[in-house]
Amino acid sequence: MRTDMPSEHEIEPIKWEAGKLLLLDQTKLPDHEEWLVVSSVDDAVLAIREMRVRGAPAIGVTAAYAMTIAAGEVDGPTMSTYLNNLDPLAARIAAARPTAVNLGWAVQRCVDLARGCRAPVEARARLLELAEEMKRQDVATNRAIGRHGAALVPKRGGVLTHCNTGALATAGYGTALGMIRAAWEQGKRPHVFCTETRPWLQGARLTAWELVRLGIPAELIVDSAAAWLMARGEVNAVVVGADRIAVNGDTANKVGTYSLAVIAAAHDVPFYVAAPFSTIDISTGSGEEIVIEERAAEEVTSIRGQRIAAEGIGVRNPAFDVTPARYITAIVTEKGVYRAPYERALRKTFHEQSSAAGAA
Amino acid sequence: MRTDMPSEHEIEPIKWEAGKLLLLDQTKLPDHEEWLVVSSVDDAVLAIREMRVRGAPAIGVTAAYAMTIAAGEVDGPTMSTYLNNLDPLAARIAAARPTAVNLGWAVQRCVDLARGCRAPVEARARLLELAEEMKRQDVATNRAIGRHGAALVPKRGGVLTHCNTGALATAGYGTALGMIRAAWEQGKRPHVFCTETRPWLQGARLTAWELVRLGIPAELIVDSAAAWLMARGEVNAVVVGADRIAVNGDTANKVGTYSLAVIAAAHDVPFYVAAPFSTIDISTGSGEEIVIEERAAEEVTSIRGQRIAAEGIGVRNPAFDVTPARYITAIVTEKGVYRAPYERALRKTFHEQSSAAGAA
Repeated sequence: MRTDMPSEHEIEPIKWEAGKLLLLDQTKLPDHEEWLVVSSVDDAVLAIREMRVRGAPAIGVTAAYAMTIAAGEVDGPTMSTYLNNLDPLAARIAAARPTAVNLGWAVQRCVDLARGCRAPVEARARLLELAEEMKRQDVATNRAIGRHGAALVPKRGGVLTHCNTGALATAGYGTALGMIRAAWEQGKRPHVFCTETRPWLQGARLTAWELVRLGIPAELIVDSAAAWLMARGEVNAVVVGADRIAVNGDTANKVGTYSLAVIAAAHDVPFYVAAPFSTIDISTGSGEEIVIEERAAEEVTSIRGQRIAAEGIGVRNPAFDVTPARYITAIVTEKGVYRAPYERALRKTFHEQSSAAGAA
Repeated sequence: MRTDMPSEHEIEPIKWEAGKLLLLDQTKLPDHEEWLVVSSVDDAVLAIREMRVRGAPAIGVTAAYAMTIAAGEVDGPTMSTYLNNLDPLAARIAAARPTAVNLGWAVQRCVDLARGCRAPVEARARLLELAEEMKRQDVATNRAIGRHGAALVPKRGGVLTHCNTGALATAGYGTALGMIRAAWEQGKRPHVFCTETRPWLQGARLTAWELVRLGIPAELIVDSAAAWLMARGEVNAVVVGADRIAVNGDTANKVGTYSLAVIAAAHDVPFYVAAPFSTIDISTGSGEEIVIEERAAEEVTSIRGQRIAAEGIGVRNPAFDVTPARYITAIVTEKGVYRAPYERALRKTFHEQSSAAGAA
């Protein structure tokens, strides 16, 4: 099966139709496939904050469409006034969530593009083109990650993934889950485990839904059971995504990623991070500089609106954690597979990419 | 505050009233404090299997009361017929759940007692006395565990506990949570973290409820966040209970315990197991011999009756895991604090205890 062919299974969670952004509402899955209509910057910021769209690459693409909407919401007698009016909206979109680098990166690309335009009407048109291009590019990037990463997926052994890094977390195909999918499409038959990923249950609700749709058999486990499966020799690789990768390889990702990395190391299980190269934040030297979002206590004390915890208990709810590079066997991007030490190689690719962009 | 004084906070989850066993139904907490009336062996087996009563020590005491009920359910023209009729009920009670050693241990004590009686009427009376004594003894044991263990709880640092090992898991006071409580009663003010403990949420529902009742401030976290808190230096000790401890120190306990042990070791955080000495299974050489219960998929795919996972996904749901002794800093029992190597010291106490029992 060619991996670049569209398939009936294909999930396209972000769409632009008739001047409006449509998001497959991830708070409603897997029970309901509902599309959220986003027609204002306010809507878009709320959709990102409430995790109706989530996953760093999906947030990035959504941000680009949100900038398209922003470009239509503001006006100005001169281009400079227009850009001044656009700025606060850009800042609001970029601040919707703090950890994923793709959000700020996407907004910055849009702002840069707008600054190069001669009139608001041109900015509006070109921002939509950019958003569409970023969406197409994200799917192509993920398929490339899948091609590079499939070689790391065991042919028959166990592969464990955390959170959701599939089509739903991106514009399509997925990153870490894309590696598993690409391996499956190549005829490999790993035994797939997905963690439920508390508190938000991205694994139980979203990854499980995608795997069932793709026809890839898999077993769901509670997050804390992963170590036991490793001790029993049932896990031969761990693949996760990333929200932000410091230039030294330290990786911020969904809470629980660090836990998996530590236990994988204790069991000599390779631990792979898969993400588009844009997730690498060249301005962040190490994980210590990454801001970790703390989310509402209700995510832990309630599940889908039902209270589960005793009243009066305190809560800590970090949404992400940072996995030091020393625990990461390899970082898989569309540019290829990177192994430690990461910094020199990541910087090299970054500069090659910047030069190519400058020359283009 | 003296720790042996009854207090208004005291939780007594197992009661015998008017010939019936009353269990504080742990499937209903923290929303409802409902008492389940157990008046037959069938009821008792179901209550254990459905986890309306749970926690190895609480299961042990419940089993003794269940044997009291069994002693009233059967009859026989001779004592030997009576005992023959009692045996299958004893076997059914002992088989209600496979992992906790206290269940089989308690049933065996009851069977041994009945065998020493001259008539069914005597067996019935003495089994009730034994059950009441085991209940009193369990609370005394737990207070002793608390006294020995409080010294290991940091004065101000962070202490993390998993699952529920409080009064609800026992006849009263608790084991690992009893250590924290005893430390608190001594004036120590550790920062307490409790994991929610998926899939059954013993931490969120039961431990949080007990801590709130006891007035001990604490923070609830998802299971997978523990590693991140350790990396930030916020956890200075981990205390957990046990369902079965092999004579070499390998410990079966709630799934996720092993994960915590591995990450604690990676962060040089001491990892303590607290349990009554009866949890030590002298006939089990190592953790490899311990049967791990696999429970229903619905525990993972649903939370309190509400479906959370995508339809069609497979599930693995081990209820327990085994933590090798090398990860355990100390085992705290009512007999004192044991440190590695465990086998010689545990066997020594066991034989002293057996000799004392034989001499009595």
